Amino acid sequence: MTDAEAQLIEKAGQRLGPKAVITDAREIEPWVTDWRGRVHGATPAMLAPGSTEEVADIVRLAAEHRVPLVPQGGNTGMAAGATPPADGSALLLSMRRMNRIRSISADNRLAVAEAGVILATLHEAVHEAGLRFPLTLGARGSCTIGGLTSTNAGGTQVLKFGTMRALVAGVEAVLPDGSVHNGLSGLKKDNRGYSLDQLLIGAEGTLGVITAVAVRLVPAIAARAVAWVGVDSPARALDLLRYLEARSDSVEGFELVPEECLQLVLKHNSGTRPPLKGSHAWHVLVEATTTKAAIDIGGQMERLLAEALEEGIVGDGVVAASEAQAEALWKLRDSISEAERTEGQTLAHDISVAVADVPKFLVEASAEVERRFPGVIASGFGHLGDGNIHFHVRAAGRAAPDWYDSEGAEITEFVHDLVTAAGGSISAEHGIGQLKRAEFARLAPPGRIHALRAIKQALDPLGIMNPGKLVP
Amino acid sequence: MTDAEAQLIEKAGQRLGPKAVITDAREIEPWVTDWRGRVHGATPAMLAPGSTEEVADIVRLAAEHRVPLVPQGGNTGMAAGATPPADGSALLLSMRRMNRIRSISADNRLAVAEAGVILATLHEAVHEAGLRFPLTLGARGSCTIGGLTSTNAGGTQVLKFGTMRALVAGVEAVLPDGSVHNGLSGLKKDNRGYSLDQLLIGAEGTLGVITAVAVRLVPAIAARAVAWVGVDSPARALDLLRYLEARSDSVEGFELVPEECLQLVLKHNSGTRPPLKGSHAWHVLVEATTTKAAIDIGGQMERLLAEALEEGIVGDGVVAASEAQAEALWKLRDSISEAERTEGQTLAHDISVAVADVPKFLVEASAEVERRFPGVIASGFGHLGDGNIHFHVRAAGRAAPDWYDSEGAEITEFVHDLVTAAGGSISAEHGIGQLKRAEFARLAPPGRIHALRAIKQALDPLGIMNPGKLVP
Repeated sequence: MTDAEAQLIEKAGQRLGPKAVITDAREIEPWVTDWRGRVHGATPAMLAPGSTEEVADIVRLAAEHRVPLVPQGGNTGMAAGATPPADGSALLLSMRRMNRIRSISADNRLAVAEAGVILATLHEAVHEAGLRFPLTLGARGSCTIGGLTSTNAGGTQVLKFGTMRALVAGVEAVLPDGSVHNGLSGLKKDNRGYSLDQLLIGAEGTLGVITAVAVRLVPAIAARAVAWVGVDSPARALDLLRYLEARSDSVEGFELVPEECLQLVLKHNSGTRPPLKGSHAWHVLVEATTTKAAIDIGGQMERLLAEALEEGIVGDGVVAASEAQAEALWKLRDSISEAERTEGQTLAHDISVAVADVPKFLVEASAEVERRFPGVIASGFGHLGDGNIHFHVRAAGRAAPDWYDSEGAEITEFVHDLVTAAGGSISAEHGIGQLKRAEFARLAPPGRIHALRAIKQALDPLGIMNPGKLVP
Repeated sequence: MTDAEAQLIEKAGQRLGPKAVITDAREIEPWVTDWRGRVHGATPAMLAPGSTEEVADIVRLAAEHRVPLVPQGGNTGMAAGATPPADGSALLLSMRRMNRIRSISADNRLAVAEAGVILATLHEAVHEAGLRFPLTLGARGSCTIGGLTSTNAGGTQVLKFGTMRALVAGVEAVLPDGSVHNGLSGLKKDNRGYSLDQLLIGAEGTLGVITAVAVRLVPAIAARAVAWVGVDSPARALDLLRYLEARSDSVEGFELVPEECLQLVLKHNSGTRPPLKGSHAWHVLVEATTTKAAIDIGGQMERLLAEALEEGIVGDGVVAASEAQAEALWKLRDSISEAERTEGQTLAHDISVAVADVPKFLVEASAEVERRFPGVIASGFGHLGDGNIHFHVRAAGRAAPDWYDSEGAEITEFVHDLVTAAGGSISAEHGIGQLKRAEFARLAPPGRIHALRAIKQALDPLGIMNPGKLVP
């Protein structure tokens, strides 16, 4: 611990009380390693403010003592963006005590949640008010609103509702100079200069600490239909998406799964069974919802899929007959990453290309990776309707104790080069964090890097906000 | 003309050809005064690049010679944000030659339009493709996509579709260092650092020159219903909005008009006549649309209004029986500003408060202004559903040749103080430009001003992008 850190910790304790300062190494330990356990950090203390004013106090102290802060929510990030540096040179700023839902307005269809509110908690609270916050993802039981906003999170319902950027109506944040930016006014039209709200969304805590967020709500779901469909190819899957979109406004989830991934899930997850008879090269999970109880969304889905079958777009399909069946279908989709990790070494790439380019990219990139690195198995699954593919490369025939170290970087660069050549993004929904910073620096246009650095330097000249993240 | 300007003009002519450099004072003249004729600028030359590369060339020359540029589209802004300084110290950068619609994709529901494309032209082009760009406003025949994006324009359909910020999928721009930011990838998910797209939207050309924009499209309208409704008060108008919203997804325009404004329109616009028999203190223009030809949107509106009449929410109402009648109703709404100006001296304030606060604000602020400045007539009209009110103060009993100069500033400050006390914005959809810069500086939190200045300085250290605008 440096002298500056010791002074900051002492002053924080004096001002905010003992609850706000955790120095017990055992209490801190779960929060200094990233969710996937790949990046290990260290810190002498975790500060846990209970209010926006306390966050502002801490940021001012951090500026005074030149001690960097690493804001953290549920620690469920996929790019180690909330993991402190390993040398202990920064303090963790845990936002979990700021967990109040300040308001839910049915009239304005807005909720204001503090940064530490857990997504599932927000879901339940707005549901009780007869409304819905539509963004959801696997980590919903742990991830926080502040983290979701700071990473511009996506998830499974982006097709209809967009990412956090589209769902955030305003942000409250403490800027690196300790001033409070209050964007929670709820104004629908406001053109008073650059949008700090939008700048903070996706900034991964490098420009300030998000303390509360106003989020847009939509009418609650009255019913949903979940279907599992077998198709010949990703191109057919895209045909099905276009077919459904032309006939219905109700599709909000459209997840592509290769047969190979489904087989891994069935192999490693004892509670699962094949959703369709027979074998299909590719699968799609389709979710459609309605806010009107009078609409037979299941029947509608049955009809549309029957027509798509007749037209030769899909090979087979089944619509869940109950919520339990619907959950079972979603479980197949949600278990893929875990099954892959159980199967063996896997390199994950969260990438996106234009929606229309997904089929071509999937087929060609998989083939190119497997040709260049014989023995590996490359496949993509995920949010076809958003152009967002989790492109995974399993070691398989090349497995070796040092596989990650010996050729992980080379394979990832190869994948990222293919994505870049296709006009895509090497970070679709997981962010840059620590893990993708070098690749971002390698592949981004120099003008973009220059602009990002200039903005970072302008707003955080002392470099106290989440150092070593996002900005190369 | 300074030596630096002369050198820049000469080099621009050499590189881009004579078409791109206009120095004839008569040709320049219409573009150096703002749309309302209140602010008069001057410039030795108007540069009119025809491509993104030419814009980049000009920006690099401007940086080299330290000559500021004032980007301009249709010159229809309401805050003089595109008017050059009066001392001739900057060159106009007209974007109107960049007027290609680069692509329209029905599959992706996206169009890419260059900055100089006129809004009405885009409307027509996407309509031919069976789609719709939903943002629209009075100046649609002159305003450009670049200007609309740079000012985060609103208009009459924001209730359903949001402002430009919600409709822009990506921005191409030349940054102040001459590098090209290309955000036109069309990726639905992309988390590679701070969103320069969002930073440029609403930046009024102070951080770079927007050269092209990818905009989101929606299905074309099959039919619309336009109604004129009389109500007792703004509170009743809001009740009607909530009533309709709870029963229909199809309302996309909801414009509030006080009787007093309607009477001015009827007085000064010979082609107009009263839409309802009898007198009502307040009026609402409601527009509902459907994308499905099978839906009887007019009948639906008739039914809903009849129910609202029975419930005592509205006093009377009429649904246009034809497109011509619908246009006539919209004309009543669109003629208000013009009628007010014809009537006499008027101070316009484009302000917003939370939607739920509009009725209270309208009634109380009007009374306070009329009490503080006896003889004036204060009233608000506009986009109730967005909380965006055009709050106008007419000189009326206080009219005097020097009224604007003698008490205009004082009245505007008084109005802005009321807006600020109500948690509202002094610039809802018109921007800050030159005209609101002092008031913005007076009323914004110091932390916000500091952040805006830091961002401006970081991205435009030479101060060559639209000096004297937006950032106090």
